[in-house]
Amino acid sequence: MTTAADTYDVIVIGAGISGLSAAKLLKSHGLNPVVLEARDRVGGRTFTVQNKESKWVDLGGAYVGPTQNRILRLAREYDVKTYKVNEKENLVHYVNGKSYPFKGSFPPFWNPLVLLDFNNLWRTMDQMGKEIPREAPWRAPHAEEWDKMSMQQLFEKICWTRTVRRFATLFINVNVTSEPHEVSALWFLWYVKQCGGTMRIFSTTNGGQERKFVGGSGQISQCMAKELGDRVKLQSAVYSIDQTGELVAVETLSKHIYKAKYVIIATPPGLNLKMHFNPELPPLRNQLIHRVPMGSVIKCMVYYKENFWRKKGYCGSMVIEEEGAPIGLTLDDTKPDGTVPAIMGFILARKCRKLCDLTKEERLKRICEIYSKVLCSEEALHPVHYEEKNWCEEEYSGGCYTAYFPPGILTQFGRVLREPVGRLYFAGTETASEWSGYMEGAVQAGERAAREVMCVMGKIPQSQIWQSEPPCEEVPAFPFITTFWERNLPSVKGLIRFSGASALLCALSVAGIVAYKKGLCPRCR
Amino acid sequence: MTTAADTYDVIVIGAGISGLSAAKLLKSHGLNPVVLEARDRVGGRTFTVQNKESKWVDLGGAYVGPTQNRILRLAREYDVKTYKVNEKENLVHYVNGKSYPFKGSFPPFWNPLVLLDFNNLWRTMDQMGKEIPREAPWRAPHAEEWDKMSMQQLFEKICWTRTVRRFATLFINVNVTSEPHEVSALWFLWYVKQCGGTMRIFSTTNGGQERKFVGGSGQISQCMAKELGDRVKLQSAVYSIDQTGELVAVETLSKHIYKAKYVIIATPPGLNLKMHFNPELPPLRNQLIHRVPMGSVIKCMVYYKENFWRKKGYCGSMVIEEEGAPIGLTLDDTKPDGTVPAIMGFILARKCRKLCDLTKEERLKRICEIYSKVLCSEEALHPVHYEEKNWCEEEYSGGCYTAYFPPGILTQFGRVLREPVGRLYFAGTETASEWSGYMEGAVQAGERAAREVMCVMGKIPQSQIWQSEPPCEEVPAFPFITTFWERNLPSVKGLIRFSGASALLCALSVAGIVAYKKGLCPRCR
Repeated sequence: MTTAADTYDVIVIGAGISGLSAAKLLKSHGLNPVVLEARDRVGGRTFTVQNKESKWVDLGGAYVGPTQNRILRLAREYDVKTYKVNEKENLVHYVNGKSYPFKGSFPPFWNPLVLLDFNNLWRTMDQMGKEIPREAPWRAPHAEEWDKMSMQQLFEKICWTRTVRRFATLFINVNVTSEPHEVSALWFLWYVKQCGGTMRIFSTTNGGQERKFVGGSGQISQCMAKELGDRVKLQSAVYSIDQTGELVAVETLSKHIYKAKYVIIATPPGLNLKMHFNPELPPLRNQLIHRVPMGSVIKCMVYYKENFWRKKGYCGSMVIEEEGAPIGLTLDDTKPDGTVPAIMGFILARKCRKLCDLTKEERLKRICEIYSKVLCSEEALHPVHYEEKNWCEEEYSGGCYTAYFPPGILTQFGRVLREPVGRLYFAGTETASEWSGYMEGAVQAGERAAREVMCVMGKIPQSQIWQSEPPCEEVPAFPFITTFWERNLPSVKGLIRFSGASALLCALSVAGIVAYKKGLCPRCR
Repeated sequence: MTTAADTYDVIVIGAGISGLSAAKLLKSHGLNPVVLEARDRVGGRTFTVQNKESKWVDLGGAYVGPTQNRILRLAREYDVKTYKVNEKENLVHYVNGKSYPFKGSFPPFWNPLVLLDFNNLWRTMDQMGKEIPREAPWRAPHAEEWDKMSMQQLFEKICWTRTVRRFATLFINVNVTSEPHEVSALWFLWYVKQCGGTMRIFSTTNGGQERKFVGGSGQISQCMAKELGDRVKLQSAVYSIDQTGELVAVETLSKHIYKAKYVIIATPPGLNLKMHFNPELPPLRNQLIHRVPMGSVIKCMVYYKENFWRKKGYCGSMVIEEEGAPIGLTLDDTKPDGTVPAIMGFILARKCRKLCDLTKEERLKRICEIYSKVLCSEEALHPVHYEEKNWCEEEYSGGCYTAYFPPGILTQFGRVLREPVGRLYFAGTETASEWSGYMEGAVQAGERAAREVMCVMGKIPQSQIWQSEPPCEEVPAFPFITTFWERNLPSVKGLIRFSGASALLCALSVAGIVAYKKGLCPRCR
């Protein structure tokens, strides 16, 4: 219960990837930062655990892929290698109680109407995304209209078939761990856009889930923390920020007072609420931070003696559409050398809230049951180990993967998301403009906030605050080539209109011919 | 910076009406409570200020009415009198740039289609409300369906005319200081229902705005605080709650540690986030408190030399539909003895966010301009004084009047709203089941939470936790009698169907008669 007053250039709150990358950049510019972390570990929403059964396991953020060049640059610097998530064999789509093996990013549909509808959905979402500025979605031409809509409402407008509407729900569940009726259409369209579009965000190969880090994503934070040494203070939850003095004073639960010229808050926006501010935050920020909840997800790893799915021709990726199934999406989680066979699966959104109260054992049982059905394998019922992490229970994350914006919030409050408040600056992946919600966004946001501080200190010009990142050579990004048909097939609506018009024209022609032949046209008489 | 350990039976967090009424009840049962208040005043979202110009003014919650029997009981106990808000002269409805004087709760509409549509709207909302249990809205038969919808979506289904849809938006703005697309339909229908229906919630006479307290609503809290004496600790914002010891330990920014057997948290749910919990809250509560934002409102009182509106036959109530107008609803705020002529007006929801950044003077100017237009009076442009309170800027309220539930939240998280967490119990008007969102709900919730604690202490049986309140004789509630026509007029949809069917029948009959007369019926030949 001692009280020490330590003075720094910058206090960074939060030792997740965003806070640590901010502090790292500040230190590399000769500044003197300190990082205050609530938990007894660094990493935030990334969390790698090591144990006998799993060797290592990422209980939080794990996946990286092409165009995520900042996090890949950090990994390279610390000599953390990536490996490709197994996608050699077939993926499998489970729907209406049946398994359909497939290859590629999205499951194929054979019903021609569904195919048109499915194609039109992605095309429409990507087209809408094109008019949303990634750094200011609230300035999109249709911002107000789209923000008043939930994604469910948008799907009701775009999708004509129940099959596609149901898949669209899974798409929301998987990407932002929330429900279509919970999220603003403007926000979700922005979210997909700033990840590079529907293909980039959802794909394993050439997409956001292409790779994992050998040894786990937690190493990135650990390496940064090691570099920062005793500047990283664990078990130092901040409860008070006082800007009334010459220096900003920050107090922690551990009864320390830290002082600095500037503060970077690198927590999810909603977690700002854990701090008592003097003076109070401005009205819009004070209300914003009550309006951006974190998604709901339990990440579940089931370990098996053998990699039985690969032998059956399945890569381990399952897309599961079944209300009674706990899991919505899986990926192979076997180690790159083929050891520790495992399946990673997500319990998402509504299912997460529903299954929160079960015991860990009961959840495992239900997960194995659905894996057994989907993979048509008895072996799935006999796991050798299980790891899970319910991110909803984390006081200092509030949920995972990221914050979502309910209808109406982005246009009304978005503009204050990263607007400094006095000497407070804001990082955290939610404030990013590329891969916000991902590790990549965390780095972009952390480094941007660090440069904002360096700019106000006169160390760099304003033009250098936002920087683009050169592509990572080891993880090249390939463009997604859309085919002529993908670009030009009609939507179901278009087809109906076309058919209607054709039928009408056809009928009119026939009528005309008949009339002519029968001499019914006045001028032909 | 001293540290004192004081031990009590119950720690109540928050000295608003809810916390104070909890502590008052506990004390009256011989228990030893303490109330910890973040601000340097009691009252929470009620706040009465006294000054030369206004004598006294309620900057926060002010209105009471029939069926709000608990708050009226407290007022009577402390000899705080009520008076009726002036509604003698005409109210005025301003729409499409014109003023229409009227009497009654809702403005009348003369266009027959609009009238049918308007009548149907209130009837439908009240009917839907009937199937929502006030103490468990998530158990309503259509809970899931209605919770996935925003009120905007519901209005799009119910309302056929733009006039009614626009008024419906104002109805949401006025009642819950948020926008139709922001709030869950299930939640809003519940909210109106538990206030006694659309008439009770919106009416001045015989409704929620019938009366104010002579001397201001702040007196209720001040009287309770006085009775509690030095048990009420001001400037004692709680930042930490530790349930790991034999007693619950609660720490304040003022560096005091309080200990007690039980804790009642009497803040809005979202303000639970200001506290660091050990152990962490359960997952659903941890996420709930990020999902229930407070509404947005600036309460504005404009003072005039004279009560000029009454002389023109206006009572001071204005219902203003005009996108450019800052104010949506006004009421006369003149003192009961006729002194200090004033108009109270609300800047609501989207308008509040938009006008936050203006100066106080600029807001006053714009308000006077619209009052001048609506009341057709040059005098409105010459105020003698102005008071305003932007509740969005309050760190320890988060907004006003109350928390709202965005789509999807009530069914998924509602059940944990007042579920105790270990030795923590939850009060605050948001946890009430009658007049939640109002001072009345605050009392109901505070007293219920106090009885929950007394029950677990073995002092009262479980059956006594929830208590009904005898009606207040001085403020009688009259039923709202619906007329035969209100009950039986068709909706616009019904009318169209009826007209369509009639027209068809009519056409068929005519065709039949013609056919008969012309001898075209085979059987008539």
